[in-house]
Amino acid sequence: MMSTHTFTESRLRSFTEDIFTSMGCSAEHAKLAADVLIKADLRGIDSHGVARLSGYVRLWEKKRINTQPNITIVHETPSTATIDGDGGLGLVIAPFAMNLALAKAKNCGSGWISVRNSNHFGIAAYHTLLAVEQDMIGFAMTNASPLVAPTFANERLLGTNPMCYAFPAGKNAPVIIDMATSAAANGKLEIAQRTGKAVPEGWIIDKNGKSSTNPHELKEGGSLLPLGSDIAHGSHKGFGLGATVDILSAVLSGANFGPWVPPFVSFLEPAENPVGKGIGHFFGAMRIDGFRAKEDYFQSIDTWIERFKAAKPKDENQPVIIPGEPEMLAFRNFSKIGIPINQIVYEDLKKLAAELKVNMDF
Amino acid sequence: MMSTHTFTESRLRSFTEDIFTSMGCSAEHAKLAADVLIKADLRGIDSHGVARLSGYVRLWEKKRINTQPNITIVHETPSTATIDGDGGLGLVIAPFAMNLALAKAKNCGSGWISVRNSNHFGIAAYHTLLAVEQDMIGFAMTNASPLVAPTFANERLLGTNPMCYAFPAGKNAPVIIDMATSAAANGKLEIAQRTGKAVPEGWIIDKNGKSSTNPHELKEGGSLLPLGSDIAHGSHKGFGLGATVDILSAVLSGANFGPWVPPFVSFLEPAENPVGKGIGHFFGAMRIDGFRAKEDYFQSIDTWIERFKAAKPKDENQPVIIPGEPEMLAFRNFSKIGIPINQIVYEDLKKLAAELKVNMDF
Repeated sequence: MMSTHTFTESRLRSFTEDIFTSMGCSAEHAKLAADVLIKADLRGIDSHGVARLSGYVRLWEKKRINTQPNITIVHETPSTATIDGDGGLGLVIAPFAMNLALAKAKNCGSGWISVRNSNHFGIAAYHTLLAVEQDMIGFAMTNASPLVAPTFANERLLGTNPMCYAFPAGKNAPVIIDMATSAAANGKLEIAQRTGKAVPEGWIIDKNGKSSTNPHELKEGGSLLPLGSDIAHGSHKGFGLGATVDILSAVLSGANFGPWVPPFVSFLEPAENPVGKGIGHFFGAMRIDGFRAKEDYFQSIDTWIERFKAAKPKDENQPVIIPGEPEMLAFRNFSKIGIPINQIVYEDLKKLAAELKVNMDF
Repeated sequence: MMSTHTFTESRLRSFTEDIFTSMGCSAEHAKLAADVLIKADLRGIDSHGVARLSGYVRLWEKKRINTQPNITIVHETPSTATIDGDGGLGLVIAPFAMNLALAKAKNCGSGWISVRNSNHFGIAAYHTLLAVEQDMIGFAMTNASPLVAPTFANERLLGTNPMCYAFPAGKNAPVIIDMATSAAANGKLEIAQRTGKAVPEGWIIDKNGKSSTNPHELKEGGSLLPLGSDIAHGSHKGFGLGATVDILSAVLSGANFGPWVPPFVSFLEPAENPVGKGIGHFFGAMRIDGFRAKEDYFQSIDTWIERFKAAKPKDENQPVIIPGEPEMLAFRNFSKIGIPINQIVYEDLKKLAAELKVNMDF
């Protein structure tokens, strides 16, 4: 069992801010970028929290992240826009884009923003929650470096391309669907790689296109499979969803798409002939009262949540889980007891602190 | 092998119009409703073509479809609206809603319409293609009567709740993702029921919540499974997508949701204590040039399509299929050679013609 350290939110937050500041981010951007990572850890999505901090630093060192971006609106209508992120941190560009979506929604009911020239944006749920806080429905999606083979293909052409839909609720926690469009998220594969455990059939194929349960195949030319896993179980649907994310995020904005999406890791080089700028995201916000009186909606969504929670379970010890519920429980818990950081990530942060001469008094 | 009859599009179309007219539809509504069904048959989606005609008639006979609806906009902003379909044919209400979305998109970049008090709307792709024809991205989804058990549940709470995303292309056919959010569409199960063949594990569970390959279990208290089939393969994602469709279509509009969605078949009665009106849909349209110069988008989407078509295949005889491509090929073929109708559907149409005293000279 791996040892873990537990840190207060405020200490981990100010350390993370300091790292971003030392990379050249403005105080405002550092604070925002740190908030995205800390909220991921608080929600229990530790694959997307401070564990990723060194990844951003390595890309910045290779000049693949611009820490002083001039984020601009390059095209717009009253309810739509395209943003150029100027190669900045997705952690900063994404909230900028979502805030523009919210402003447009306030003005005309909904706002839809496609983003080019960005980088990894953290957890999609962070951005959709900005909408939920204002009684709006939020959408967020991003393309990502190619790991997934389309149905019938033996080639990585799509990222795990997550999509997130968030719905405010009344008495209950909001309904937040935040999902990779692959059968398994890359983070789950990484856990199997670390523990050396076999993965279920239907997650990956090897470099010859054969089904495999070896989590290391992905590093040896294999691919992840789309949600649905095989054609008999609807993998063409998972492929279609990943394609939707790729097109809305990148074809619509002028970012790189498909196999041209630049890798998130510094040891892999971007494609030599890019078809666009950086990676792409897509955001949306819709005012509840653009459709219906808020109080009527809140009553209906609470009925929805309570009816689904009360569904007859297959196993009495495992009731139905409303999407977003586990993350909300984690958030409440970790906000109280502090954020657990495992030994590997702790060592990684210590190394970063030494390199960037940031004080790490924990 | 079942015998089939092949009819010219124009004959089948005028017959279908006559059936709708004899139900009391206006000439305009009859023409529109027939167009939705005939286009489904032309696209090879024969489960949603004239094969469904008698289903609409039976619901009308039970006064569960209003053939002279007063379709109204009950709430709106510049880019959003909710429509009440007055219990009419979804085949008529859905194009009305999509046309409103298109008008709003023309005016302010995008349009988003939630619909209550409707009925089955045919194929989602029909409605999104109305957007594509005007160089817009189209979205369409609908909830449906409960057949799918959420992850961990042994109870039908969601319909197969399809979602459709359609993207116009330049030189190539548009990219059209039109998918049930269950592992298998109900139509596929019906084929297995007719042929008596076992279905793959992961499509259904029996009334005790156990995995089954018997296609008849659904009629004996079993359930369909969400896309992903089981938790290890992401069925919580399929559940999340089905939930998204249910909430956008019905919680947002004031239609029935979850287990309260009225059945599409006349021999099952609607819930006694409905939580809303009829079934719900959700539509969206976004102008391409709300984000980017059209010519740039068309160049990028063509590059996307051509690169994915050229993906290295697992099997050289089975190249990657771009979503929407098979339906487009079927459309071209059946537009030329006529529409094949199998013997069972043919007999059903003959019976309808006799009952409603409609001339069927084919």
